[in-house]
Amino acid sequence: MRLRNVVGASKIIEDSKYIILDYKEHKRKYSKVFKNKNPIHIEIGMGKGDFIIESAKRFPHINFIGIEKFDSVLVRAIQKLEDEQLDNLKIIKMDATNIDEVFACEIDLIYLNFSDPWPKARHEDRRLTSELFLEKYELLFKEEKTIIMKTDNRHLFEYSLKSFTDYGYAIKHLSLDMYKEVPSTNIPTEYENKFKDKGPIYLVHVNKNKKARNC
Amino acid sequence: MRLRNVVGASKIIEDSKYIILDYKEHKRKYSKVFKNKNPIHIEIGMGKGDFIIESAKRFPHINFIGIEKFDSVLVRAIQKLEDEQLDNLKIIKMDATNIDEVFACEIDLIYLNFSDPWPKARHEDRRLTSELFLEKYELLFKEEKTIIMKTDNRHLFEYSLKSFTDYGYAIKHLSLDMYKEVPSTNIPTEYENKFKDKGPIYLVHVNKNKKARNC
Repeated sequence: MRLRNVVGASKIIEDSKYIILDYKEHKRKYSKVFKNKNPIHIEIGMGKGDFIIESAKRFPHINFIGIEKFDSVLVRAIQKLEDEQLDNLKIIKMDATNIDEVFACEIDLIYLNFSDPWPKARHEDRRLTSELFLEKYELLFKEEKTIIMKTDNRHLFEYSLKSFTDYGYAIKHLSLDMYKEVPSTNIPTEYENKFKDKGPIYLVHVNKNKKARNC
Repeated sequence: MRLRNVVGASKIIEDSKYIILDYKEHKRKYSKVFKNKNPIHIEIGMGKGDFIIESAKRFPHINFIGIEKFDSVLVRAIQKLEDEQLDNLKIIKMDATNIDEVFACEIDLIYLNFSDPWPKARHEDRRLTSELFLEKYELLFKEEKTIIMKTDNRHLFEYSLKSFTDYGYAIKHLSLDMYKEVPSTNIPTEYENKFKDKGPIYLVHVNKNKKARNC
């Protein structure tokens, strides 16, 4: 996606009450940030935030943390949140590469929505479903590990299903053409709304029960 | 598929040199049937035989056994074989439900091509990728367990990926639109040739390394 520069974006982001600036300080203690012990779901690559904002509204008893590295999209999410009062939503501006420095044994679910496919083989490690990332996620999860992924990129989806199951995840739910099912519970991303008529949207829930290391 | 009755089919089938009539007598000893120790690949539901006949021609150092319950399609396969001399191909006329009474610790690979989707929930156990069948296959395999499946039925494919990975199989290769890849090694079935232009053909290779019980 080509990203437009937004003047003053970084200031708007920093000033938002939704942003956690000292995010490395809360490792293993994110429950305290939310002041409750509700499950924590994170979205890696929240973009302009449609998915995570609507999720937070719909599920007040789940805490949501959105992660995004690009100012230009994050500022749009922040602007959407201006008139909202959501106690169960926080945002971290960071590159997901360092996610294992931020959380430990406290995440219940990871959402990967329309992640960058990084099609070139030499960029495999950058895909959010590569073995490298699955290893990092291992440290984040509490006990049961669940990842929910949506994408319209067939090659990324094929790659991810192989990567997940090679890593010991089982497929719990799968749709190879989500909009043929029209599940009433689906919360679309902004990208999804644009591209859902152009080809199939793939969806998968994967799960792994083994205990996380170090928890 | 509506099956046409073929007059004299059962006689033609019984008389074929490719048919193993006393198939329950060779359990654990199918290598002797082929008079060599080459790997054994089976296709459950071989239909009119295009896939398995071409496979046997292309891979002379693999032994193939086709399984089919319907006379009306089996007779077509037998007729195609009339002028062939394939020592590495045998056919068994049987219902796959009893497959664990026929083989033990001797199969290297199972092909499931365009299997009946049995869409109704109450018929789940009849799907060739149900837990019930995966349990039976467990007894058939030698050591490494590999299943290769092709289908144009999205729901059967979604169901099967869940069923495989729940049972401990990992996805080794996957295509959600095989004909967009045009893999030069693909051997089409007769059904596939008819339907490949009507929608995506799905393909998966799954694998499981744990030792088979009782081997």
